[in-house]
Amino acid sequence: MPSIEVEKLSVRERYHLLVSTVIPRPIAWVSSLNHAGQTNLAPFSFFNAIAANPMSVCFAPVNDRNGKPKDTLLNIKETGQFVVNIASEDNAEKMNATAETYPYGVSEFEKVGLTPVPSLKVKAPRVKESPVQMECELLQIVTLSEGPLGGNLIIGKVVVFHADEKIWNNGDIRHQDLKAVGRMAGNWYSRTRDAFELIRPK
Amino acid sequence: MPSIEVEKLSVRERYHLLVSTVIPRPIAWVSSLNHAGQTNLAPFSFFNAIAANPMSVCFAPVNDRNGKPKDTLLNIKETGQFVVNIASEDNAEKMNATAETYPYGVSEFEKVGLTPVPSLKVKAPRVKESPVQMECELLQIVTLSEGPLGGNLIIGKVVVFHADEKIWNNGDIRHQDLKAVGRMAGNWYSRTRDAFELIRPK
Repeated sequence: MPSIEVEKLSVRERYHLLVSTVIPRPIAWVSSLNHAGQTNLAPFSFFNAIAANPMSVCFAPVNDRNGKPKDTLLNIKETGQFVVNIASEDNAEKMNATAETYPYGVSEFEKVGLTPVPSLKVKAPRVKESPVQMECELLQIVTLSEGPLGGNLIIGKVVVFHADEKIWNNGDIRHQDLKAVGRMAGNWYSRTRDAFELIRPK
Repeated sequence: MPSIEVEKLSVRERYHLLVSTVIPRPIAWVSSLNHAGQTNLAPFSFFNAIAANPMSVCFAPVNDRNGKPKDTLLNIKETGQFVVNIASEDNAEKMNATAETYPYGVSEFEKVGLTPVPSLKVKAPRVKESPVQMECELLQIVTLSEGPLGGNLIIGKVVVFHADEKIWNNGDIRHQDLKAVGRMAGNWYSRTRDAFELIRPK
């Protein structure tokens, strides 16, 4: 069994090990606004829930190879608000298209052909084409390092939860019908239809 | 489209919305030691990578309905070390069995029939039956709330990475062969075999 001391690996090698091992990853498709009111939309798969009290989620925009932070991080630092939209089979191609690097201030909504919908409690718009949208207020940002591929963990509190009627079941989500997609390594994604049940012990 | 103000929901309702929406979730099967050297092993699906620099992961042990913290959180606060083992189709039933609540100090390794293997740089043992094991040192714990179902985010730095020969490919992991399982809502899990490719734009 290969055993590797991480300090001997390049940052790039560490990244490849993480994205091929921590799978399947849920996808936060995050919409945000900058100080000038320009929208941004980008997918992040270093994403998960934290707790129900407060109802909280976190995601990590990784700096690029030159140490440049993502527009999403800059926007949230400026405005303290964002929306997590859920990526599903129906919107996966458009979600992937929003991963393209555009100049700061250029809106992925416009470039990719998606519909911004006003939120109720935050200024950032929601993505109409997404079956679940969570309006979030920033709780804190944990910066692990400033450099190339450095880590920033954005922790947000969900303040408004929107769900499409088709997957809504009297206060709950029919997770089998959400058709969420998970992120694997490279260009790969996994569907969530190939499911099985294990009864949780008490 | 139902739009819900989260402050009007019970903590239980918020939890159900999170686990049915943030899917599929990767699973950290975490082994830890308490001050007396007793082992603990438990699965957590509020888990993801953060960054490659430092090579970091986070997971969130949620307090129980009475506000009692998980043994894993207590152990990591005491020792500052843990191992993230990856759950796959081959070990999913045993992984699920370790979710059972045992008295503090009782080892899930023994109860469920798993093999602890010594780690290289941390005192907590690895799970032999897991195809990937990441030895971690605690970087920080972010406590969002102390109460029932309250959130604690444990952030760790990966210091040693172990991988089974079968999935190891010259410095990388063959993610298709890892057969990792993702967590859905309720008692449901999803496999990662039903995959598709989307070429990421530049």
